Amino acid sequence: MDPLEGRSVLVVGTGLVGTSVGLALTRAGVDVRLADAKPEILAEAVRLGAGRAEPEPGGDGAGRGPAALAVVAVPPEAVAAVVGEVLESGRAAYATDVASVKVLPTTQVRERVTDPGRYVGSHPMAGREISGPNAALADLFEGRPWVICPDDGTHQQAVTRALAVARLVGAVPMTMTAAEHDAAVALVSHAPHVVAALMAGRLAGAPGHEVRLAGPGVTDVTRIASGDPELWTEILTANAAAVRPVLEGLRTDLDRLMTALESPVTGQPVLRELLRGGNDGRSRLPGKHGAAHTEFVTVIVAVDDRPGQLARLFADAGAAGVNVEDVRIEHAPGQPLGLVELDVRPGAEQELAASLRERGWTLRG
Amino acid sequence: MDPLEGRSVLVVGTGLVGTSVGLALTRAGVDVRLADAKPEILAEAVRLGAGRAEPEPGGDGAGRGPAALAVVAVPPEAVAAVVGEVLESGRAAYATDVASVKVLPTTQVRERVTDPGRYVGSHPMAGREISGPNAALADLFEGRPWVICPDDGTHQQAVTRALAVARLVGAVPMTMTAAEHDAAVALVSHAPHVVAALMAGRLAGAPGHEVRLAGPGVTDVTRIASGDPELWTEILTANAAAVRPVLEGLRTDLDRLMTALESPVTGQPVLRELLRGGNDGRSRLPGKHGAAHTEFVTVIVAVDDRPGQLARLFADAGAAGVNVEDVRIEHAPGQPLGLVELDVRPGAEQELAASLRERGWTLRG
Repeated sequence: MDPLEGRSVLVVGTGLVGTSVGLALTRAGVDVRLADAKPEILAEAVRLGAGRAEPEPGGDGAGRGPAALAVVAVPPEAVAAVVGEVLESGRAAYATDVASVKVLPTTQVRERVTDPGRYVGSHPMAGREISGPNAALADLFEGRPWVICPDDGTHQQAVTRALAVARLVGAVPMTMTAAEHDAAVALVSHAPHVVAALMAGRLAGAPGHEVRLAGPGVTDVTRIASGDPELWTEILTANAAAVRPVLEGLRTDLDRLMTALESPVTGQPVLRELLRGGNDGRSRLPGKHGAAHTEFVTVIVAVDDRPGQLARLFADAGAAGVNVEDVRIEHAPGQPLGLVELDVRPGAEQELAASLRERGWTLRG
Repeated sequence: MDPLEGRSVLVVGTGLVGTSVGLALTRAGVDVRLADAKPEILAEAVRLGAGRAEPEPGGDGAGRGPAALAVVAVPPEAVAAVVGEVLESGRAAYATDVASVKVLPTTQVRERVTDPGRYVGSHPMAGREISGPNAALADLFEGRPWVICPDDGTHQQAVTRALAVARLVGAVPMTMTAAEHDAAVALVSHAPHVVAALMAGRLAGAPGHEVRLAGPGVTDVTRIASGDPELWTEILTANAAAVRPVLEGLRTDLDRLMTALESPVTGQPVLRELLRGGNDGRSRLPGKHGAAHTEFVTVIVAVDDRPGQLARLFADAGAAGVNVEDVRIEHAPGQPLGLVELDVRPGAEQELAASLRERGWTLRG
């Protein structure tokens, strides 16, 4: 049975993530208690329907007594103190957090909390550029990984209840150690951000005629470099220990490649090896349905700028009975023209191309 | 008047680019002569309508005599020899090439050709993953930059005629020196490819639980790492001199960032500075219509997997009268569900979101 059935969940911190958890759990029929240090933020979350304000602690009247689980949605450095207070004051029987790094809060909880086994760290891998309760969404976590990081001392009830929350909000629960989590996000999120930012940084001082030749490739490589420098300074600092080894591996490969470029002939085997390594890594990225990455075939269509053009294009693609797996739009320099790249499964491209040409679209290589 | 009016253009090498030039010039009313070392490749280009097989050289009958311009579409190392033969045998009055690096062929032409001023290097920045005449497209160059690289010794007629070809095929002509061209592609194409490949390479040996957490960020950063290692080994080798300084700048910034990660507190100003540099560089990338990059607001919609869903979504977005500036699709791990990200101009997002919700779509953060 659902370990939270008929029980209450306490959400501490009603920002974007906390309020989204409240909205999703409330929708799932869970009794959600909300708390936030800022009364106006709490009031906003309550107004949005994320739950009810937490009743005064103690007592055993209806809706009182400890919550089955506290979901602590506060900054990483604040997690341990809040978890300790919540557990030791009897506001909740068990607790989890949602911070984007896990070794830091887990270590601090072990140091500061009387019975640290009642806490399990977790990280729902979902977010938005905007923050606060008003940015919250009941389905923010749907289909996203929710990592849960138990250790040898963790009570099974803490894990069971955290897993129940992840499932109730529609996430895909995964369990790994805190160190494994931090290493994973260093590799698939933090190091790629560094790489994108440093590559984009090279463009900052470049002459205009160089930047004008930029195409869709460099645009994709640097897309995430638009992220908030303050936020990313915090993230990289909090996870420095896990990010460093990834960047060290990168620097070693970069040095090998730069040396290979100094002696074109002898260097070519090294270039080939490093570029093949890129193919291999790329092919491991999860594709659709979490399956192994599939290579799609791209059909490129020229569209002009009027609203409704994409609507017409996708209607026509749909009419061809071809499932479009992925879409990108690139814009041609100096022209009010967009190139829409439609990825389809190998074999479907002829059918799609023919059908689109028939409907008057201009295809492009 | 059009400097090619009533004149012939000779295309030497009828692969993807040469045949596409032939198709585009023929469509524009230019008399195109085709030549290729491989008779079957030439025959295919003729069959596709890219032009007529070049008549026997010499004589002065109709359609004989030197072509106004030769477009030499052969590998970079072969350019100088072919240009020399074409000019000195009287097959063409002037010549250009279409290789993706420019210093190498330009230097070799200067060394090997009697009157190197009759040659001007150029580079149409368009291509496809597939090659050969059958991959050719009459509008391959439409709206793409076509870089032309004259030097002090270049005859004005060579430049005029190369510019005319670029315009006739629908490209956006730009002129810069060969060195400026090679530095530009090193920055906006070759170094980003290296960065994507090396980041993707880090994923190759990673444990599955780490790769499973990969999201759209790392997927974008590494997209071009799927490129052909042989082709890119050639490109990086041919442009090594221009790629190296870009990578040296990257290496310096990477070292600074890694040092900053060793001392979290004192390092934060450096992290902030490098991440801001990424913001600055990113903002310089050409956006729509070659204008400065605009930040769009993203509306995220959950769609399931059936064909026609995107058609319906874009029809509904069109009905809202909102112009979708860019589109991405990301796939949720372990779920037959796609998240479609629609970029719209700031201000349009509420209208679009409301209109889509009204039509039954699930929006997502």
